[in-house]
Amino acid sequence: MRFFVSVSYNGEHYSGWQRQSNATTIQEILEDAMGKAMGCAVELTGAGRTDAGVSAKGYIAHFDIEKDLKEHAQLLYKINAILPSDIVAHFIAPVSPEAHARFDATSRSYRYKVHTSKDPFAWHSFYCRFPLDVEAMNRAAAVLLGTHDFSSFEKTGADNKTSVCTVTRAQWTATDPDHLQFDITADRFLRNMVRAIVGTLLDVGRGKIFADDIPGLLESRDRSAAGQSVPGEALMLCNITYPYEISKIN
Amino acid sequence: MRFFVSVSYNGEHYSGWQRQSNATTIQEILEDAMGKAMGCAVELTGAGRTDAGVSAKGYIAHFDIEKDLKEHAQLLYKINAILPSDIVAHFIAPVSPEAHARFDATSRSYRYKVHTSKDPFAWHSFYCRFPLDVEAMNRAAAVLLGTHDFSSFEKTGADNKTSVCTVTRAQWTATDPDHLQFDITADRFLRNMVRAIVGTLLDVGRGKIFADDIPGLLESRDRSAAGQSVPGEALMLCNITYPYEISKIN
Repeated sequence: MRFFVSVSYNGEHYSGWQRQSNATTIQEILEDAMGKAMGCAVELTGAGRTDAGVSAKGYIAHFDIEKDLKEHAQLLYKINAILPSDIVAHFIAPVSPEAHARFDATSRSYRYKVHTSKDPFAWHSFYCRFPLDVEAMNRAAAVLLGTHDFSSFEKTGADNKTSVCTVTRAQWTATDPDHLQFDITADRFLRNMVRAIVGTLLDVGRGKIFADDIPGLLESRDRSAAGQSVPGEALMLCNITYPYEISKIN
Repeated sequence: MRFFVSVSYNGEHYSGWQRQSNATTIQEILEDAMGKAMGCAVELTGAGRTDAGVSAKGYIAHFDIEKDLKEHAQLLYKINAILPSDIVAHFIAPVSPEAHARFDATSRSYRYKVHTSKDPFAWHSFYCRFPLDVEAMNRAAAVLLGTHDFSSFEKTGADNKTSVCTVTRAQWTATDPDHLQFDITADRFLRNMVRAIVGTLLDVGRGKIFADDIPGLLESRDRSAAGQSVPGEALMLCNITYPYEISKIN
């Protein structure tokens, strides 16, 4: 039987989602905790990688298991008791044997937080020491909407078949004059893509480049043409959607 | 000339406000940064100690200096550039030579955050693994209002002349079903007092003791009669009031 598990994690002390031989990752900690709680090996297939330091709310992974999980009383409680305080499992849901956490996801939404004056309480937020022109950043962000080849915002060396993504939302909001957040939704994201986009839009915000430069930048398909990647610690994967209902059992 | 300086700090990586020979404190870091920025030794007198791990917004300290600070262009900017990212100076204000950051303060307000379900994003909040009866906690908190001897909530071994404090606010608020905050205001606080009060009120919230036990607990003047102190990391000093206007120059 196949199941989805939904988790949230504060990623600041982890090397991203994907299991690595030489670093602590969410996948490893979660597989170990679930395996311990269920008394069997658990292999998770996540909805996608998240980079080192990146956090997630409602991240989805799937796993196959012979057992009928309905018999596992308080399974979620057990898993959460084993997991450290910075990872929480929300629910486990039975899905069809063909359901796939990564391939079936129809959209992912990320939020990136930025503050422009020193703030000891701006957690998971990037301190940008320049004043920012939010209107200009939103003009530039609007250029990204729609279907484009995003190679210019992809970590070099990535071996994707295609770098084409469809962006359905790309918007900066000032929650107060010194605190901004950037919300972006797309069908898929390339490695490093959100952080490279945010770095580029911050360059627009400080007047280093202009919204009118973005079309040419996309067309160049050259990572070095775009801005620097901003740190992962201020990035949050906020939502993943699927084209079917997910019915929780736990 | 005497000045007030207003600062905020995320205290989680510090051993409290007060300078110590064997631990890093806010006072030490701030005195060093201000001294460096102004080119002279700075000795700060704070509005009070804060315990290890405790944070503050708008903490006030005073210092004396021969110089006319109006000549120091961008002094605040310089101080903040030297200070680490978890401490920020808000303003420097000239005050009368008799003004005293500690003795003149007429009230201090603290906030303590608690969450009752696992939450990787509850920052500066204490995870209480028991469901809490907020109404009962507020009935118990109301008993603390007014002027009492708070010896039962004072760190043993403290050498105050008096343990009498006047509490003008003591209130729990549920920001959502799983997240609570406790706001307390008093003319003064004893060492460990807020954390001992919160620990005791959490005992009320889980039904270990009752609101009706609080008067006897206060009268006992016995620290061991009250509940355990909760961790400092979830405590924030939010406000300090003075009986006079403070006019910023920087």
